[in-house]
Order: sequence, then C-alpha cells, then structure tokens
Amino acid sequence: MASTSSKRVGVVLAGCGFLDGAEIHEATLTLLSLDRRGATAVPMAPDIEQLHVVNHAAGEPSAGERRNVLREAARISRGEIQDLSQAHARELDALVFPGGYGAAKNLCTFAVDGVALKVNPEVERLVKEMRAAQKPMGFICIAPVIAAKLLGAEHPELTIGVDPDTAQALQALGAKHLERKVDDIAVDRKLKLVSTPAYMLGPSIAPVAAGIDKLVSALLEMA
Amino acid sequence: MASTSSKRVGVVLAGCGFLDGAEIHEATLTLLSLDRRGATAVPMAPDIEQLHVVNHAAGEPSAGERRNVLREAARISRGEIQDLSQAHARELDALVFPGGYGAAKNLCTFAVDGVALKVNPEVERLVKEMRAAQKPMGFICIAPVIAAKLLGAEHPELTIGVDPDTAQALQALGAKHLERKVDDIAVDRKLKLVSTPAYMLGPSIAPVAAGIDKLVSALLEMA
Repeated sequence: MASTSSKRVGVVLAGCGFLDGAEIHEATLTLLSLDRRGATAVPMAPDIEQLHVVNHAAGEPSAGERRNVLREAARISRGEIQDLSQAHARELDALVFPGGYGAAKNLCTFAVDGVALKVNPEVERLVKEMRAAQKPMGFICIAPVIAAKLLGAEHPELTIGVDPDTAQALQALGAKHLERKVDDIAVDRKLKLVSTPAYMLGPSIAPVAAGIDKLVSALLEMA
Repeated sequence: MASTSSKRVGVVLAGCGFLDGAEIHEATLTLLSLDRRGATAVPMAPDIEQLHVVNHAAGEPSAGERRNVLREAARISRGEIQDLSQAHARELDALVFPGGYGAAKNLCTFAVDGVALKVNPEVERLVKEMRAAQKPMGFICIAPVIAAKLLGAEHPELTIGVDPDTAQALQALGAKHLERKVDDIAVDRKLKLVSTPAYMLGPSIAPVAAGIDKLVSALLEMA
C-alpha cells in the first residue's frame, strides 16, 4: 500500500529552454530527485506570454515569434501543469524554482532591470504565502534573485555560486550571499530556504545534478 | 589532466517536448548518464521542420504554428547542436536515440504510417554508417522502430516494453521483440544494440532514469 504521506512540492517553471524559459536540465533533475525520494511534484507556471523567444541554435532572439510560458513549461512536465494563479501554499509542503533565464525574464524582470526588478504578482503572492506558512522553498541557479527581492527585509542567506555582480545584486536586495560550489547548497534554516548554483557555475550536468539532489533532500527534510 | 580517451557519443534529438519532439526527460537523463561516466555527448538533430507543433498544456495540435527540429533540440542541449547531416560514424564511438513522439514523427514516419514508415534519409545514412563500422547504438522508448526498420534484415533484438501493438510492428519489420520492465534493457550483442522502454512504460521519471543509465552503461561498455 502506497504511503499517503507523500509530500507535495510545487515546481515553478518559467517556460522551456535556458535562454528564454526554464533551464531544462535543472527542471528535469528537480523532478527526478523528488520522484526518487517519494515526493509528488506539482508542476506549475504563470499563464503569461514569454518576454521573448530565443533561437537556441543561434543564441539570438527569434523576431516576431511569441510563446506562452504555461504551454512551453508543460513540455518539461509531460503535459501536467497547473496555472500558478490557482496554486496555494495550503496545498503544498514545499516549493522549488528551477533556474534558466526564464526565471529572470518571465517570473521577474531581473534580466532587464537588475536590482530594480519587478516580480510576477502571482509568484510574489505564492512565495509570500509559503513564507507566512513557514514552508520551505528552494531556489536554483539565478532564481535566488526572486527570494532576495521578496524576502530581502528578512535578510535571507542565499547562493548563486561565485559570480560577483549577481552576488552584489543579491546583497543590494537585502540578502546575505554565501559562496558555494556547483555541487553544494546554501541553507537558511531560519527562513527555510535552500539554494544551489547549478548552471550559474556549471560546467556540466553531473555536478549540477549533485547540487540539485542536495537541495531537494534539504527541502524535504524541512518540509 | 583530463583524459583524452573520453568516448564521443552522438545523441540524436527530435525536437523538444514529448508530443512533437524529443522526450525531454529521456534526453536529459541520457546526457546525465554520459557525463557521469566521463563520456562526451555530441547532440545532433536534423535541420528540418517538425511534422507539427503540439500545445503540451492542452495535448492538442497548435494550428498554424511551425518549428524547426534542430532549433528546438538545441533547447535540450543548451545551444550545442550539430546538424545531423554533418555527423559521421568515424567521429563517434556510439550513437543514442532518446524517444518521444518526435522520434516517430520527425526522425521517421511511424506515428503516421506504422510499419510502412519512412526514415529520415540522414538518420538512415548515419545508422547504417554506425552499423557498418560495428559501433554500438542505443534506442530509447519508441526509437527502436527506427532500428527495426533499418536493420530488420539482420533481425535485431529490441524492446519497447510490453505494448502488444508496437511489439507486433517491430516483429513485422524483422526484429525480435523482448519484453522488458521500465528499469531494464535489452542487449543485442551481435549487432551492438541496446534498448530500454522508458516512457513507453513509465510511470515516472525515477525508473525511467534507471533504465536509461543501464542503457548508457551497456553502450559505453561496447564502445
């Protein structure tokens, strides 16, 4: 008989593809880690248009093309996707944000506005609900900028690896930046936050997987 | 000092998304397994238009939308992608085909034509080059239909899991079908072929990962 105590973990996807959406490896490895540990992933995304579409073979914007974040995110989750506006902290035990430029282009405007970033209102609502409920959250790659912006007043401890400009931005938003290697995590036990550098450092998928697996383990332990 | 004996393994991608391209988890897990084992992945895709585009949130074709297999595949490989027409067996130690409907819609026409399938000419050329050079190949999920079509005269031993209709199609093409569980592989040592059911069986990413890891291990052992 299956355990009925499986933890439900929201996975917030920003599209599909590291240059304009969610980083595919980071998202997939998050789902793998959750499944291996018996947790239930709840994939979700905002039903909004992407900032833009990037031709990933050329590394250049694809002029005139438009895509929807929710529809593209559903590629990563094999069709199972919830509109982020329908997601609530009361139905989740934890929440994770994979990275990729989409986290900084579609979930917030960090890629365009730097420390003057705005966060998508539904992302802001859900993160603040989770924080109010004292439920743990994970932030991968560039996604810690969202935590820094929304929770900066509580001085969250976060890592984006070692990049000095991004670390400085986190600190400007009120966070304390901790340097970490790609296969390691930073844990803020007070605010129940975990972060890992992933492809902010790279250089390849195996060490990124190791860091994400540690993040998921710490997240479930706090859930 | 890094080893210079790293094996180069072509990974043939059929787009990005299981309903109209490469199955994202299967492709990502293949890259993970290769990297963990010290092999070098060489992502490649045909520079052709997709059969169609599917809205993965709705599970329905997206009317009027067009996408290129190579460009979409580059999302999975983080921009590093080779045109399949430029790939040659002499530069590779092994070749692997992740699954997803794209393998049966873009790399061949099995999804439309069943056992009367046609295979993309560049896919056919490369598979036959690999076979002539006696280099190993891996086929994941539905991709074994390509091996059955191209190598049927040599009666390859392959698995797609347990689905009776697809197993019958493989046999009609000349292959011998072996029933396998999702976390297992079928190995044809004579033709140097490995296959695993992956999402032909599912039901979730962890057992799919186990099967793909065994496939990559067997592939590299034969390379």
